[in-house]
Amino acid sequence: MSDVNRVYRLVTRPQGMVKDSDFALKEEPKPELQGDGQILVRNLYLSVDPTQRGWLERDTYMPMIGLGEVMRAFGAGRVVASRDPGFAPGDLVSGMVGWQDHVVLPAKGPAAPSKLPPGVPVENALSLFGITGLTAYFGLLDIGRPQEGDTVLVSGAAGATGMAVGQIAKIKGCRVIGIAGGKEKTSWLTGELGFDAAIDYKAEDVSARIKELAPRGVNVFFENVGGAILEAGLDHLAQRARVVLCGAISGYNDSFSMQGPRNYMNLVLTRSRMEGFIIIDYFDRVGEAMKDLGTWLQAGKIKDRIDIAEGLDQAPAALRRLFEGKNIGKQLVKIADA
Amino acid sequence: MSDVNRVYRLVTRPQGMVKDSDFALKEEPKPELQGDGQILVRNLYLSVDPTQRGWLERDTYMPMIGLGEVMRAFGAGRVVASRDPGFAPGDLVSGMVGWQDHVVLPAKGPAAPSKLPPGVPVENALSLFGITGLTAYFGLLDIGRPQEGDTVLVSGAAGATGMAVGQIAKIKGCRVIGIAGGKEKTSWLTGELGFDAAIDYKAEDVSARIKELAPRGVNVFFENVGGAILEAGLDHLAQRARVVLCGAISGYNDSFSMQGPRNYMNLVLTRSRMEGFIIIDYFDRVGEAMKDLGTWLQAGKIKDRIDIAEGLDQAPAALRRLFEGKNIGKQLVKIADA
Repeated sequence: MSDVNRVYRLVTRPQGMVKDSDFALKEEPKPELQGDGQILVRNLYLSVDPTQRGWLERDTYMPMIGLGEVMRAFGAGRVVASRDPGFAPGDLVSGMVGWQDHVVLPAKGPAAPSKLPPGVPVENALSLFGITGLTAYFGLLDIGRPQEGDTVLVSGAAGATGMAVGQIAKIKGCRVIGIAGGKEKTSWLTGELGFDAAIDYKAEDVSARIKELAPRGVNVFFENVGGAILEAGLDHLAQRARVVLCGAISGYNDSFSMQGPRNYMNLVLTRSRMEGFIIIDYFDRVGEAMKDLGTWLQAGKIKDRIDIAEGLDQAPAALRRLFEGKNIGKQLVKIADA
Repeated sequence: MSDVNRVYRLVTRPQGMVKDSDFALKEEPKPELQGDGQILVRNLYLSVDPTQRGWLERDTYMPMIGLGEVMRAFGAGRVVASRDPGFAPGDLVSGMVGWQDHVVLPAKGPAAPSKLPPGVPVENALSLFGITGLTAYFGLLDIGRPQEGDTVLVSGAAGATGMAVGQIAKIKGCRVIGIAGGKEKTSWLTGELGFDAAIDYKAEDVSARIKELAPRGVNVFFENVGGAILEAGLDHLAQRARVVLCGAISGYNDSFSMQGPRNYMNLVLTRSRMEGFIIIDYFDRVGEAMKDLGTWLQAGKIKDRIDIAEGLDQAPAALRRLFEGKNIGKQLVKIADA
């Protein structure tokens, strides 16, 4: 292992789509443990998530990333040195590791990493068993509250969260319609994942297709996209529908011209609610999700899919892939072999 | 009493603001009872409500009003003839009476009128004890769920629903901020009705003022207006806030250019919900509202205010007053003396 730590630091605040030049890849000395209660982690995979675009723009549920700071990212790695009895070299962990080869993390407190669940491959630990799978699980079940027989509409359905939402809704006895871009994605949703139907927003009139596919309306709309897709779903709510607001990926690179849903008053006409949530609020309930997801995976009722970009230097491009709709399943960046 | 029934029929579907010429005032024969189970009502007051604009435009929770049909309106009157044992001449009733002098109504079923609560003046029966007071009561308490100490923001605060929402929130121990247009309204809200603060949207920067007045954010936002006012409120939600979607009066006359709230993703960042409701769903719980409202009125804890237009021929102009922001309190049209 070299003494060099490759680190991506934010150098300019992105205007519109993130560019390679918004970040600088620097070679810095590998960090060392400075005292007790610290661990040194060799990063293996970075999780690539739409919410990272928000961290570049303003203070939200986390402070904005400062210019000159390491690009913040969730990810997983292997402990290579520890000055805490809770972690030993060789342990696989996940946490806020950042776009870099190595990171020193505290062993305790809110910034401490978690050990990966035993027997779960690192890639899946960052996908179905990671932030995106948990987001799907709690967002759908706790905010969306699907009932057996409900029609569930999922936008961004071929993304990491969307694919899990649709499959969990199927397990709960719902009829599931996904919205995604392109035939490859829609065929995969219906062919491999068992969605009842999938709408290709690049080729079809989304609102008209929802009307055809859900003539009695949509009971739960899990929303990752925003813009025209959000409006299309709101057009066809059933009475007392639940709109689970998870993301608005269509607007993240252009927040100034972001539009709101012009038909939001359909929430009144259908006595429906639209509700936001943030997954960090559910971290004390991770155990119940892990148990269900693990059981379903073992029983073959749910599948995971990983989309890997190879090499730390691909991190900015991998982040762009999300907004370009190029990823199918969970986008990761692989930094080193596990 | 003459044998003539003055009747306003819809003749053209309004484009933009409703015009006198969208309706035709006709003199028709006074209707007569045709069989058992019917009552003839002499209309006294018409309730003037923003939702009537929606009935002119499309099917919603009620069918659209057809061209040539009597303009639909809630209102109150006195029974002058009855062929049903449940009603006697002299009874005061409220129901869907329409813009006309007389109406024949069924004594039973969903279109039957209700008897007015005894001892309540007809004007108040259509305001604080009518649809608008009930909308305030159930929308605030059932959807908004205010807790003691919460900050409650009310838009359209000097209207019939808004004035009741703010006063009920005060009774529940909340801090109340109203938004209304003009000094006369804001002074009345803080001076007479006990609102803690009122923002004049015609003279002040609403978002900046909300920030000043609610530095810890808004817990419940009761929304009657839409557009920039909705966005201003969403800018300053507290964590886990409840946005009670009641109306969008700013957009009712121009639904094609209606905008959605560009900052709706603040619902995610604050883990908040925005929920619609329709008062007809609460009709089986009217008793509990009447009991509370009556107790509060007797104790001087809540006040009612009526804004009367004199004469059936003023009905179209009275409806316009709502969208022009001219009414203070509940807008009624007086057709005849009680």
